[in-house]
Amino acid sequence: MTSYQPTSRSRAKRAHERARYDHDSVHAMFDAIPVCHVGYVVDGQPYVTPTTQWRRGERLYWHGSSASRMIRATGSGIPVCVTVSAFDGFVMARSPFHHSANYRSAMAFGQAKAITDRDEKEASLRDMFEHLFPGRWDDIRGNTDKELKATTVIVMNIEEASAKARSGPPVDDLEDYDQVDCWAGVLPFKAHFTAPEPDPRLRRGIAFPDYLKHLSE
Amino acid sequence: MTSYQPTSRSRAKRAHERARYDHDSVHAMFDAIPVCHVGYVVDGQPYVTPTTQWRRGERLYWHGSSASRMIRATGSGIPVCVTVSAFDGFVMARSPFHHSANYRSAMAFGQAKAITDRDEKEASLRDMFEHLFPGRWDDIRGNTDKELKATTVIVMNIEEASAKARSGPPVDDLEDYDQVDCWAGVLPFKAHFTAPEPDPRLRRGIAFPDYLKHLSE
Repeated sequence: MTSYQPTSRSRAKRAHERARYDHDSVHAMFDAIPVCHVGYVVDGQPYVTPTTQWRRGERLYWHGSSASRMIRATGSGIPVCVTVSAFDGFVMARSPFHHSANYRSAMAFGQAKAITDRDEKEASLRDMFEHLFPGRWDDIRGNTDKELKATTVIVMNIEEASAKARSGPPVDDLEDYDQVDCWAGVLPFKAHFTAPEPDPRLRRGIAFPDYLKHLSE
Repeated sequence: MTSYQPTSRSRAKRAHERARYDHDSVHAMFDAIPVCHVGYVVDGQPYVTPTTQWRRGERLYWHGSSASRMIRATGSGIPVCVTVSAFDGFVMARSPFHHSANYRSAMAFGQAKAITDRDEKEASLRDMFEHLFPGRWDDIRGNTDKELKATTVIVMNIEEASAKARSGPPVDDLEDYDQVDCWAGVLPFKAHFTAPEPDPRLRRGIAFPDYLKHLSE
């Protein structure tokens, strides 16, 4: 099992039994949770911007308008932190202290930079489609040069990363199981795709494509 | 309508028609989305840590183990960025360029600091329970001194903030509606609480409380 080498940057300071540093655990987390939060610093001020990410090997990618603050900043070759997280529910314990949340998360560190080469940019956008919506790219029209110019793709090599998760019932102090008379358990929180909503301007006779069925109810 | 004064830090650089700066829009976003991502900087390195937040007036709060990296860093009085976001679905357009995501988000900037006063700390934890699970606090046992010491509450006054959202169908280039023969629309993504899972160690005869019903299916 190949692992990232945890340093003071990525090693979990607490609840370390919930942390994993192996590539498979980290990759699985990024692959399962498409929306990430990108952290970056401009003039000492931290910013956290949500965006869609995709992964290829040890690289994370995101993209956006070339005019966006986040894209301009992260494209300039600065240290970033990319975090994905999914909230799975509240953990209701018998004491305030043991209340918790069930979650899955991963945090990756590296230097981001913009992909400037036209062909590499287009290939990476195609890659995003293959990752998120395999089959979609061939169904839509291609990018124009103007659109490609207005789009910037950012890539970050994962230098260091960790994954962390909690699941299951509350873990209470032993005496509280008997002494505290309150309901305890988990309030699960689930997220999923529901029935597709066709564009009101969709022309008649165009069916919902098979290649998107895994992203619908 | 009272608004935050946008500066270069919080003003949306693009899709500015999706941005709001009024207090009500920002507050509503933080109140609706309990999990936030806290961005902070240590030695030039950005970190993004997911945690639960709650709001009281112009203040955002979060808490955690006094040993946590994020809690120690943000408790020391540094600039932070707190972002909440909810992903509402993929927007499938007729060109790659107009593919998008539906989402709701808010970003708030300020200086974070730890609440050190014991009574103020306890009052703010009680406040968290009243905000997230009204009625719960009186049902569980109180904090011990040791637990209170092991817990740190962080507060941040919102200096500046913005909310941003996208909803609705794709917006395609006029000619693509006719010329591109592919399915277009929204793949909605929904998140909600499901049926509560009682702790396997829950004593018999303890019913699921009414005050948690709004957090269950």
